[in-house]
Amino acid sequence: MLKEAIYHRPKNNYAYGYDKKTLHIRLQTKKEDVETVNLIYGDPYDWQEDKWINKLIPMQKSGSDELFDYWFGVVEPPFRRMRYGFKISSGSEVIYYTERGFFKEAPNDTAYYYNFPFLNEADIFAAPKWVKDTVWYQIFPERFANGDTSNDPDGTLPWGSEEPTPTNFFGGDFQGVIDHLDHLVDLGVNGIYFTPIFKAHSNHKYDTIDYLEIDPQFGDKATFKKLVSACHKRGIKVMLDAVFNHSGFYFPPFQDVLENEANSPYRDWFHLREFPIKTEPIPNYDTFAFVGSMPKLNTENQEVKDYLLKVARYWVEEFDIDGWRLDVANEIDHAFWRDFRKVVREVKPDVYILGEIWHDSMPWLQGDQFDAVMNYPFTNGAIEFFAKENLTASAFADTITKVIHAYPSNVNEVAFNLLDSHDTPRILTLADNNTAKVKLMFLFQLSYTGSPCLYYGDEIGLTGGQDPGCRKCMVWDEKEQDRELFTYLKTLITLRKMEPAFGTHASFQFLYTDDDTNTVVYEKQTNDQRLIFILNNNNQAQTIDLSHLSLPTGTNLLTGEITHPNKPYSIEPYDFIIVKV
Amino acid sequence: MLKEAIYHRPKNNYAYGYDKKTLHIRLQTKKEDVETVNLIYGDPYDWQEDKWINKLIPMQKSGSDELFDYWFGVVEPPFRRMRYGFKISSGSEVIYYTERGFFKEAPNDTAYYYNFPFLNEADIFAAPKWVKDTVWYQIFPERFANGDTSNDPDGTLPWGSEEPTPTNFFGGDFQGVIDHLDHLVDLGVNGIYFTPIFKAHSNHKYDTIDYLEIDPQFGDKATFKKLVSACHKRGIKVMLDAVFNHSGFYFPPFQDVLENEANSPYRDWFHLREFPIKTEPIPNYDTFAFVGSMPKLNTENQEVKDYLLKVARYWVEEFDIDGWRLDVANEIDHAFWRDFRKVVREVKPDVYILGEIWHDSMPWLQGDQFDAVMNYPFTNGAIEFFAKENLTASAFADTITKVIHAYPSNVNEVAFNLLDSHDTPRILTLADNNTAKVKLMFLFQLSYTGSPCLYYGDEIGLTGGQDPGCRKCMVWDEKEQDRELFTYLKTLITLRKMEPAFGTHASFQFLYTDDDTNTVVYEKQTNDQRLIFILNNNNQAQTIDLSHLSLPTGTNLLTGEITHPNKPYSIEPYDFIIVKV
Repeated sequence: MLKEAIYHRPKNNYAYGYDKKTLHIRLQTKKEDVETVNLIYGDPYDWQEDKWINKLIPMQKSGSDELFDYWFGVVEPPFRRMRYGFKISSGSEVIYYTERGFFKEAPNDTAYYYNFPFLNEADIFAAPKWVKDTVWYQIFPERFANGDTSNDPDGTLPWGSEEPTPTNFFGGDFQGVIDHLDHLVDLGVNGIYFTPIFKAHSNHKYDTIDYLEIDPQFGDKATFKKLVSACHKRGIKVMLDAVFNHSGFYFPPFQDVLENEANSPYRDWFHLREFPIKTEPIPNYDTFAFVGSMPKLNTENQEVKDYLLKVARYWVEEFDIDGWRLDVANEIDHAFWRDFRKVVREVKPDVYILGEIWHDSMPWLQGDQFDAVMNYPFTNGAIEFFAKENLTASAFADTITKVIHAYPSNVNEVAFNLLDSHDTPRILTLADNNTAKVKLMFLFQLSYTGSPCLYYGDEIGLTGGQDPGCRKCMVWDEKEQDRELFTYLKTLITLRKMEPAFGTHASFQFLYTDDDTNTVVYEKQTNDQRLIFILNNNNQAQTIDLSHLSLPTGTNLLTGEITHPNKPYSIEPYDFIIVKV
Repeated sequence: MLKEAIYHRPKNNYAYGYDKKTLHIRLQTKKEDVETVNLIYGDPYDWQEDKWINKLIPMQKSGSDELFDYWFGVVEPPFRRMRYGFKISSGSEVIYYTERGFFKEAPNDTAYYYNFPFLNEADIFAAPKWVKDTVWYQIFPERFANGDTSNDPDGTLPWGSEEPTPTNFFGGDFQGVIDHLDHLVDLGVNGIYFTPIFKAHSNHKYDTIDYLEIDPQFGDKATFKKLVSACHKRGIKVMLDAVFNHSGFYFPPFQDVLENEANSPYRDWFHLREFPIKTEPIPNYDTFAFVGSMPKLNTENQEVKDYLLKVARYWVEEFDIDGWRLDVANEIDHAFWRDFRKVVREVKPDVYILGEIWHDSMPWLQGDQFDAVMNYPFTNGAIEFFAKENLTASAFADTITKVIHAYPSNVNEVAFNLLDSHDTPRILTLADNNTAKVKLMFLFQLSYTGSPCLYYGDEIGLTGGQDPGCRKCMVWDEKEQDRELFTYLKTLITLRKMEPAFGTHASFQFLYTDDDTNTVVYEKQTNDQRLIFILNNNNQAQTIDLSHLSLPTGTNLLTGEITHPNKPYSIEPYDFIIVKV
């Protein structure tokens, strides 16, 4: 057995409290190198060695990627604490793996073993319960619907009359959203994520001028209250976008700094490297990227912290919003986010906190900061396999399996899984306008563990490249909408709600991939239900023989037909079969 | 190259802010598998790909253990953020390792690379500066010195007249410590860690009755104030022991619970599993271990939290103590410790926070909780090699190298390195009363990175087995003290203060081990100075040839003799040579 490939370190994704009684333990081994893994465990203070070393829990192989197998075990230690190690076997070879390394015999001294000192409820990752059953819909407010022309900014163009540019306006607003809530209810989504709505000059509003005011082009606070209330009446949660990493150029404290430089009372609100302040050739103050108009806020300064936390609290307290999406979340200090969580959770204990992080995000998902991050590693896997066909079926499965094993299960269950956003090209465009591919992607997204998010317009076939292209006006003329796509998505959302194993309450595991045919088979499983998804990501119809998987007899979830384990499945190009077992 | 052995994950010990300008990056590879590692890095927002992909920083091999080599690189990214990857070479084979895995060519897309999003000062691990220059001395107050017989508890035995038992008393007190501060000054220590001093029945006081009162057997608050002040006048820091995981049985809230059970206003101060409360056969409430007289406090309850944080603040604010040692720290929730840090640091910004954790402690050493833990993995390595001779020289080096690479450098620099304590047998006893071995251990401890702690009496040859044996009365009759050992230790402490490379400000690395002769060679290095330590952990004199190490000509630090790289070093049994280069 390859010892160098064996990895475990307590906490993070390897040993964590799943709930107040249950610990999850994971182990990594070299792919196909190990036959069985057993978890040895006992109470740290129960010194009857023979007794506890013989407590073995068989661990299950929960997935594999190109290099590794991952093993998974569940324990409910009676006194909420445990020491543990691994008995790893391959043929006649047995090794014991503990905190102090590898041994041929199980060490008797419990001090050698890994330690999970105590399962304190306060440390358990706990996202709001409602998120697991939420299907999100992301709205870029300037482009969703214009319901009130009286608040249109100067130079507003007729709706959809031109391609979006970095600077043009089409007059989308809150009244437009209110007017079209039935569309969302019809589709079946039950959460809206709004990109920023606070006072700002740009059409995207990521350059905040006033965090306590609504941008007048969207309406006023009364309209926003009406919007939140209309959403809540329909069972729809509302999430706003907090741009706390940087302010806009016209944020009054930054203007004060520009005017008064070293004498400004706000000089420590930013990271000014020298005076006089310059924006060229690159800003001599910290910014988002190198964008001079987005000066980085000094969130380590208590005044700034107090101000931003007041903002965070205000919109929850006064407007009853249900979530905060945090822009450029990983460039702000962890200390700030810990306080942020406390403040908003104090006002409303089930607020969802979603960080924008494109990379591995374990340090933010320990229970003390975010409930989720925008799951772009998932996005990349799906896009590269389904839309761009840059990944083989097995490489796709490897990518997704890695994402799953990079986080605890309770983190995965509320991950924010998106296929596109205001920051990426639209999936239909990425898929070369091949709607069949998009449908397959939606199937994967909606049946995956976590909380899926649809980007406005994707449901009716909106196209667009990298921003600003992806920020087109929503098409409301049904004749110009892809209604079949809409109906298809509606069906998937319904299935997600109706079938327990379809949604996030079920475990996810790949069963089979075929790189020659681009076939992918995965299962979703609850205690009571098992669904097998067979996806043909191929421009040719396939007859897929899965007899080697020894699946039980089942029924086709969509047609009700009986499926037989040894009878090949005939699947059209870019189509799929879901077998209910 | 063995891909399965290659490991990196940002944050923790692999990528961390060392100070507000500097990032440290580490990589693990299979032992002796890789020839060079170069760090590729660039600003995440500087898209001139050719430019940044060509920025290479050679990484240094910072150590090896039985399975792995560890590589280390230092970067000062100009805008405090960076994407990075690794170019790993062995002969003609080159692989690129990024967040998305292994590649034959360096990916052009920066999104593939690892991300260190921003070096926020608030998140940098920052222990008090004074700790690096502190040599601690642990006092078990009941057994150090009896300076005031008027406060002796009933049944106090004549000093040192009997072996210590779990229940006997000898009358040690604060006045005794005050009387003997010259002993500590003479030895050269400049920090005292006191095991608990608060009101409690036992001789060890880990069963607190009142966290806001001094146990009368030690004196009163005025005496304690006098003690702190006397210490501070001599440049000695004072650290107290906070037993917050559990209270004593006679803690009034627990007594109230015993009396009033479900009706007690304190019922949620503990973890009571059922009523009536029972202590037999095992307690039906959570306890430390299974000790019914030590009920676990519910630190998740805001009232308990407020009470304990008041205690934490009180002793810092009112008595100006310099540190808190936290008993059973890993069984309390992280959330509690984050608030603890805030509260005590607010009162005194350079308080040292030391957790009692015997295992891998990375989750507590992220900058938001503790400054250090009691470094028992270091202790185990030293004891097993020097005292018990259970480890070969190379296995010892592997163990210590693993400890070093398990934590960031700034964590190692303030680690609390002990050889024994009130919870373990004394080192002289572990070393079968072989003082030469103990001296070699002290050399290793005092020249190692971190903040060493001596256990009272070890400096004059006190013996004793597992507690209560290790809690003997201090011997004050100089005729009964091992004065030679005392002088030896005093010399080491002086060297630590005089020679920059001796103490914690220098990097530590093993250069050579020989399992046949039990020889260990390591170096300590600063920018200006290099010391080579050659240790003969053998009961035979050795002539050690180190010509293969190509050491420069140097001087013997203790004798001033010139040493020549090609001339073997003659070293007596359990003796050593320190070469200053």
